[in-house]
Amino acid sequence: MKISVILAHPDKNSFNHAIAETAVEALKEKGHEVVFHDLYRERFPAILPAAEIPRSAALPRIIRRHCAEIAMAEGIIIVHPNWWGQPPAMLKGWVDRVLRPGVAYTFEEGDEKGAGDLIGLLKAGAVLVFNTSNTPQERELAVFGDPLEMLWKNNMLLSCGAKKYFRKTFGVIITSTLKQRQLWLAEVEEITRRHFPATPA
Amino acid sequence: MKISVILAHPDKNSFNHAIAETAVEALKEKGHEVVFHDLYRERFPAILPAAEIPRSAALPRIIRRHCAEIAMAEGIIIVHPNWWGQPPAMLKGWVDRVLRPGVAYTFEEGDEKGAGDLIGLLKAGAVLVFNTSNTPQERELAVFGDPLEMLWKNNMLLSCGAKKYFRKTFGVIITSTLKQRQLWLAEVEEITRRHFPATPA
Repeated sequence: MKISVILAHPDKNSFNHAIAETAVEALKEKGHEVVFHDLYRERFPAILPAAEIPRSAALPRIIRRHCAEIAMAEGIIIVHPNWWGQPPAMLKGWVDRVLRPGVAYTFEEGDEKGAGDLIGLLKAGAVLVFNTSNTPQERELAVFGDPLEMLWKNNMLLSCGAKKYFRKTFGVIITSTLKQRQLWLAEVEEITRRHFPATPA
Repeated sequence: MKISVILAHPDKNSFNHAIAETAVEALKEKGHEVVFHDLYRERFPAILPAAEIPRSAALPRIIRRHCAEIAMAEGIIIVHPNWWGQPPAMLKGWVDRVLRPGVAYTFEEGDEKGAGDLIGLLKAGAVLVFNTSNTPQERELAVFGDPLEMLWKNNMLLSCGAKKYFRKTFGVIITSTLKQRQLWLAEVEEITRRHFPATPA
């Protein structure tokens, strides 16, 4: 299977990087074809310009490439820290520019203005989202209601046609021990293998 | 009063621009001092780099300026379209870089690592958020749960110490008439005046 892995964390020594690398390794071991983007390292241009809002807009090559990849992906893995209950701007900009009309969703015939329901176009059978957080999970739920769950699941992924969705938050990172982080990476490996088993020959 | 107005929409002819201009005019008529930022026009650098994560990080001048302004603001007005239940990356990046530890929030003594509760530092007495949407409000609530409400109110503004919070979404924009948009701008003016009346001499 073709699997896209999208990572957004500014620090190359971050635990997010360790998660993404672990997931990529687990996918490769299962024989999958991995398309990996470390958005910060690649300096992804994350700000949607006005000219790209129309559905028929001409797109720069880098955006065309990301669009083609995500449209063809049979699975997607997204890795990022929880910043203000949302992805970092870098990843939000990837969503703004790449999950475009005609790529990730469309509207029903006769609804050219797009005020109605989305029809998802992504063909990814499964999407995994791995997050890190420095807010204890009980507090995240009690005070904030864990908006990332709703955002990824309802607003972004299921609307765009993803079939299965699974999300896991690791934390509290900042006070974690090495041993704990090793256990978390083992969990990343297990989750990745479980959702993307080897393709039958 | 010093009021910061922050706008994020890529199209200078957008209804978001009309909202922001209407709010700025209403504030000036009441004698307030307005600090207005059109983040797209100013090409705000919206991507938080790794070097800025530490609390004691040295900041570029533009970020220092935005931090000083928001820390001193007695009121804040934020204007942006609802993109995927979230602000555009441009505005998310402003939040990532400007609502920093030591500027917008801090942690209790002894919690240097910041795994605990935030203590808000913003002194803004009132914050208004004006949004535009192309999703009918009933569908936004039923399918998506209106995550922007939770994000601005709980995750960002009240956590950072803002006292009063009011948010209004205008839409569906794409199918609206000129007359409807004029009525919406009159509402922006009324809401702005109500929340920021003239300061007694």
